[in-house]
Amino acid sequence: MRNIMIKIEYDGTNYNGWQIQPNGITIQGEIKKALKKLTGEDLNINGSGRTDAKVHARGQVANFYTASNIPVGGFARAINHFLPQDIAVLEAKEVSKDFHARYWAEGKMYGYQLYIYPQRSPLLRNHSYHITYELDIAKIEEAVKLFIGTHDFKAFMSSGSSVKSTIRTIKHIKLERQGHCIWLEFEGNGFLYNMVRIIVGTLVEIGSGKRDLEIVKKALETGDRRNAGHLAPPQGLFLEKVFYPLTH
Amino acid sequence: MRNIMIKIEYDGTNYNGWQIQPNGITIQGEIKKALKKLTGEDLNINGSGRTDAKVHARGQVANFYTASNIPVGGFARAINHFLPQDIAVLEAKEVSKDFHARYWAEGKMYGYQLYIYPQRSPLLRNHSYHITYELDIAKIEEAVKLFIGTHDFKAFMSSGSSVKSTIRTIKHIKLERQGHCIWLEFEGNGFLYNMVRIIVGTLVEIGSGKRDLEIVKKALETGDRRNAGHLAPPQGLFLEKVFYPLTH
Repeated sequence: MRNIMIKIEYDGTNYNGWQIQPNGITIQGEIKKALKKLTGEDLNINGSGRTDAKVHARGQVANFYTASNIPVGGFARAINHFLPQDIAVLEAKEVSKDFHARYWAEGKMYGYQLYIYPQRSPLLRNHSYHITYELDIAKIEEAVKLFIGTHDFKAFMSSGSSVKSTIRTIKHIKLERQGHCIWLEFEGNGFLYNMVRIIVGTLVEIGSGKRDLEIVKKALETGDRRNAGHLAPPQGLFLEKVFYPLTH
Repeated sequence: MRNIMIKIEYDGTNYNGWQIQPNGITIQGEIKKALKKLTGEDLNINGSGRTDAKVHARGQVANFYTASNIPVGGFARAINHFLPQDIAVLEAKEVSKDFHARYWAEGKMYGYQLYIYPQRSPLLRNHSYHITYELDIAKIEEAVKLFIGTHDFKAFMSSGSSVKSTIRTIKHIKLERQGHCIWLEFEGNGFLYNMVRIIVGTLVEIGSGKRDLEIVKKALETGDRRNAGHLAPPQGLFLEKVFYPLTH
């Protein structure tokens, strides 16, 4: 049995998220179906983590064990033949037997796109959070700094997941303004459920003047969800990269 | 009667192009329907020019005459309420009675997006031309220069339109590489039917080594369509801007 690692891009617009579930179509489910057609096998696909409905990925990672002897060089093209147009495997490679996409992940990078203009954007409608009013970028840049480092992010988590610890480290946050868009990038050792979207919601509220900068410190200190901002919508979020030890 | 000029963005993926036709849904048709709902009037909408099926716009311009007294400040928002999510009016303003979006246009800017990677991109599938092999960018940059200026672009025109002259001036072509994408921008005083897409097809063939640089000179001199490259697909094309005299 070979252990194959794949890097996946998807447009999450028409999916109920990554993870297979009884109702609704999912990315993991579509990949499972495509692999069944390609290899004839009923495989378990381990993703690096879930993404919610309408969330996108440019660098989701997964692995699976296969008895098939399809060369890895042609694997991406072969599986893409069986995948719908809004999912594609970008790369495939054989990895050591013990590699697991979730357990071995050392960190992740997410991107989030804001679109700031009075009218909605037809071209970005499924790939951004539409804000109709101006934001104070300098204020958002100040707020961003408060999130960097190791903190208890309990206030920036939606309920619905069980985690041992709510302490996480954000290594880096990038903010870029391009025309009517703001692109935010978050790199960290791991993210709680909805953490990026709640941070973005908080940044938007600070940028609009609805909340004060102080709220970030208070939320990090108290762990109280009510001190953090709203949950930004899923369609602005992109899983950009998953980091693994250098040997992979 | 007021003469209203509107700037429109659309995702052309699900449309049979700009112009109203007996079969299929069109951008112009959807705007006409939305204006009917908003004003109760059956209006003629003059676009700056047609765009083909699956072609997008970030800056299409149109005008129409209305007896309604809806203030222009709230016009964009009001009409967007009646438009589908893949079409939006970005701005509306009252212009002089004699303004006509097509006759008054002094020039246009089109963008074209290439996506270069062995596997297709789910996120860019409707907004780029997917090329699976590497292109020689330096060669494309050289070829680009040959198009700039005033030329007879007869070889770079599809049949199906009647024009008096096939002479056009390209003022400027910009080429930007961003990750796996190449963004091309063409600014000129006017473009023949499919001209941008045939120029792009020619550039791709030169970049891939299929055709020599010399072919551009030959095509411009002979006006022979066979000396130009293939018609690049519609989904990579964006109508970015329409230019009018400074008074508008």
